[in-house]
Amino acid sequence: MKKMINTLAGATALFVASSAIAASHDPAAIQAKALDDEIAYDITEGLTTEIGPRQAGTEAEARARAWSLKKLKALGFKNVRNEPFMMPTWVRGAETAEIVSPYPQKMHITALGNSASTGADGVEAEIVYFSSLAALQAVPDGSLAGKIAFVTHNMHRTQDGSGYGTYGPIRWVGPATASKKGAAAYVIKSIGTDYHRNPHTGGTGFPEGITPIPAAALSLPDADNLERMVKLGKPVRMKLVLTPQNIGQQESGNVIAEVPGRDPSKGMILVACHLDSWDLATGAFDDAAGCGIISAAAKYVMDNGQPLRTIRILWAGAEEVGIWGGKAYAKAHSGEKHAIAMESDFGADNVWRVEHKLPEGANSVKQQINKSLLPLGISTLGPPASGGADIRDIIASNNLAVIDLQQNGTRYFDLHHTPDDTLDKIDPEQLRQNVAAWSTVLAIIANSDADFTMPPKK
Amino acid sequence: MKKMINTLAGATALFVASSAIAASHDPAAIQAKALDDEIAYDITEGLTTEIGPRQAGTEAEARARAWSLKKLKALGFKNVRNEPFMMPTWVRGAETAEIVSPYPQKMHITALGNSASTGADGVEAEIVYFSSLAALQAVPDGSLAGKIAFVTHNMHRTQDGSGYGTYGPIRWVGPATASKKGAAAYVIKSIGTDYHRNPHTGGTGFPEGITPIPAAALSLPDADNLERMVKLGKPVRMKLVLTPQNIGQQESGNVIAEVPGRDPSKGMILVACHLDSWDLATGAFDDAAGCGIISAAAKYVMDNGQPLRTIRILWAGAEEVGIWGGKAYAKAHSGEKHAIAMESDFGADNVWRVEHKLPEGANSVKQQINKSLLPLGISTLGPPASGGADIRDIIASNNLAVIDLQQNGTRYFDLHHTPDDTLDKIDPEQLRQNVAAWSTVLAIIANSDADFTMPPKK
Repeated sequence: MKKMINTLAGATALFVASSAIAASHDPAAIQAKALDDEIAYDITEGLTTEIGPRQAGTEAEARARAWSLKKLKALGFKNVRNEPFMMPTWVRGAETAEIVSPYPQKMHITALGNSASTGADGVEAEIVYFSSLAALQAVPDGSLAGKIAFVTHNMHRTQDGSGYGTYGPIRWVGPATASKKGAAAYVIKSIGTDYHRNPHTGGTGFPEGITPIPAAALSLPDADNLERMVKLGKPVRMKLVLTPQNIGQQESGNVIAEVPGRDPSKGMILVACHLDSWDLATGAFDDAAGCGIISAAAKYVMDNGQPLRTIRILWAGAEEVGIWGGKAYAKAHSGEKHAIAMESDFGADNVWRVEHKLPEGANSVKQQINKSLLPLGISTLGPPASGGADIRDIIASNNLAVIDLQQNGTRYFDLHHTPDDTLDKIDPEQLRQNVAAWSTVLAIIANSDADFTMPPKK
Repeated sequence: MKKMINTLAGATALFVASSAIAASHDPAAIQAKALDDEIAYDITEGLTTEIGPRQAGTEAEARARAWSLKKLKALGFKNVRNEPFMMPTWVRGAETAEIVSPYPQKMHITALGNSASTGADGVEAEIVYFSSLAALQAVPDGSLAGKIAFVTHNMHRTQDGSGYGTYGPIRWVGPATASKKGAAAYVIKSIGTDYHRNPHTGGTGFPEGITPIPAAALSLPDADNLERMVKLGKPVRMKLVLTPQNIGQQESGNVIAEVPGRDPSKGMILVACHLDSWDLATGAFDDAAGCGIISAAAKYVMDNGQPLRTIRILWAGAEEVGIWGGKAYAKAHSGEKHAIAMESDFGADNVWRVEHKLPEGANSVKQQINKSLLPLGISTLGPPASGGADIRDIIASNNLAVIDLQQNGTRYFDLHHTPDDTLDKIDPEQLRQNVAAWSTVLAIIANSDADFTMPPKK
């Protein structure tokens, strides 16, 4: 795979050489170099081995920031710093589930972020089964008093990750819905696609006026087992113990590093990932790899001579638990001139499609990007770019242009928010293809004097 | 797949019809019927859903026996009964592991059967890394005082499961070896081939005179992470908490059912599986499926008319924790005339090879079996049959003939003894192929008047 890509990258140099970019910034040369990358893997390995899980607001995330500052300085970036902020922090406690009757057995479960506690004695109640969120929404308010609502789904793997958007509301709004219906607790089939006994955590929320209730996710094998039990027709009773706590405002922070541009008056290129992970795993896919990819790419551009525009690297804090880092970044930096924002936060498998949100006047840049990515097997013709969670607020506040390098999400929701998100899941060849794609795009846009100002929003 | 097999099974009927077996016992007709089997899946689904984990000597195994007696009677078998026996019982307690320094993080671990307890306060000690059991064996006795020995390996998937025999001693004799070396505790990379955060349990033992020590298995991702930490060169300290207990002699039992033969003076055919599972999972592969396969096959033979020989079904108790059921069976029944013993205890994936240990005089039966299995994609030319764990003692005491229907073990050690051994892992088509192979062989041997008496052992 790698050999083929290298050959093709050499061929593509022919047409890229005719572009307006100085030879030292030749995207094809940078792409070829990036295909031998070791930096992205090194960062991913370091964060997952030397730090491990890095939940926002905990001492582990603080250790991760210290590690990151050191690593980014060692790579030669400038203006490396931590920008601290405070955020409300929820931490996991004990979590067990067992079927009490008629088929006694333990189940694998994990609390959803912001779940209420059952107290140490737990809740024991009858399961009421719903085949969808719509079915739960259809029952009268108050009708689930003293019951545990259980919602399942039929999410499948998708390359673009659209299954998550489709079934995610079961996690995002299901708990609040169940609370309105009077349920004592809420359990779901994990929003995921793997059949391992590793439940998927992830944030939920209870709007103002809705009483938080205990909310948790069963692994997919456990959820299917519970569904089979329910279908046997006898009342099924579960005992659920979840003892998470809210520990108030804690410190998190955004780690920032820069490749200063030759012309500070040109808007900068913002490239983002997030440094925090959920607590269940070492967060290789989500999102140590993203931090590795964007930083390796920025380094290859930097090493080929000072770019025209400043590249700013943002390793955001506290994404998983409410995108607090992205919010803090926008608040602190919306007064600065940004040109384009990009994020890598969808694992480490191949980039398969590039998407753009660029002004009409930058059409030739878009064409150059698309052509330069062809050797890497990256298609175009997707929807407009929208960016990742950590750049959402700065994109909105500054009306920024965006480029998305979409990663193959086919196995992303096997791993996402589970204990299984570990270094061994990283395919070094696919990781390098990501770095090559990012290096190519960054080499083009950081050296382009095109006007990336978006037309005013309607 | 299924369609193709059916067509081929029809074709094979041509040559099987010329055999000595009465038309009502036509193996090809029984094979074709078995390819539509639902019984094996039904048994596997029932045991995993309605009972769940069934550790030997616990109330869960007792519930499983009650369920099994009811199920085997409902299927129409005769002389259905439980034959209780007592066996020493070890039960899991708390189990946690964390790296204390220099890279603090939690790890996924599970105690090995017969592990000693660390006490509730646990053991905290420096890790001493060994790349193999041989490396551990090479250090002087007493040299690991106050340390935790950690042994890793490089086991790969094999169709015949031979990787388990090769690397298994790390679990079987490693703990006792580490004790002799003075280690405070012993941790291994799970004897398995999957990269999920689900460690593999399994029995170990401490011979007379060797002090039991705490012994546990890390999941493969955790073991690799620990190995990377060790290789960074700083001393790595682990805190390990394991609180298993020996709860003394408890009751287990063998569930037995029969298809009585027309001629009780002919030796019977013994077909075995084991009913107990490890406590971490619902034991679909290991070994509910085996019980489903052998019982479905016996039923198809029974439904085609009373066979010449008695078929005895043994759902053995307490296999995982010391093969107590197999020992109890041999002790109780070695005085009865057995002809051939067979066992299914290697998951539910396709039978890929048939192996025999038959006397010379039964050569035509062997040839008939081999030919009748061709439509199912089953090869010959393997080593002699040796049987499974639960029939080991009766084979030895009665010098029995054996036939092995070897199942594809490529993914067996992804699941074996982990929380992931659940119903969703069963492929119904492959399960049916097993039932068809077993039905074919049983139809032939239960209706054969060949002399299966083995020559005296040298």
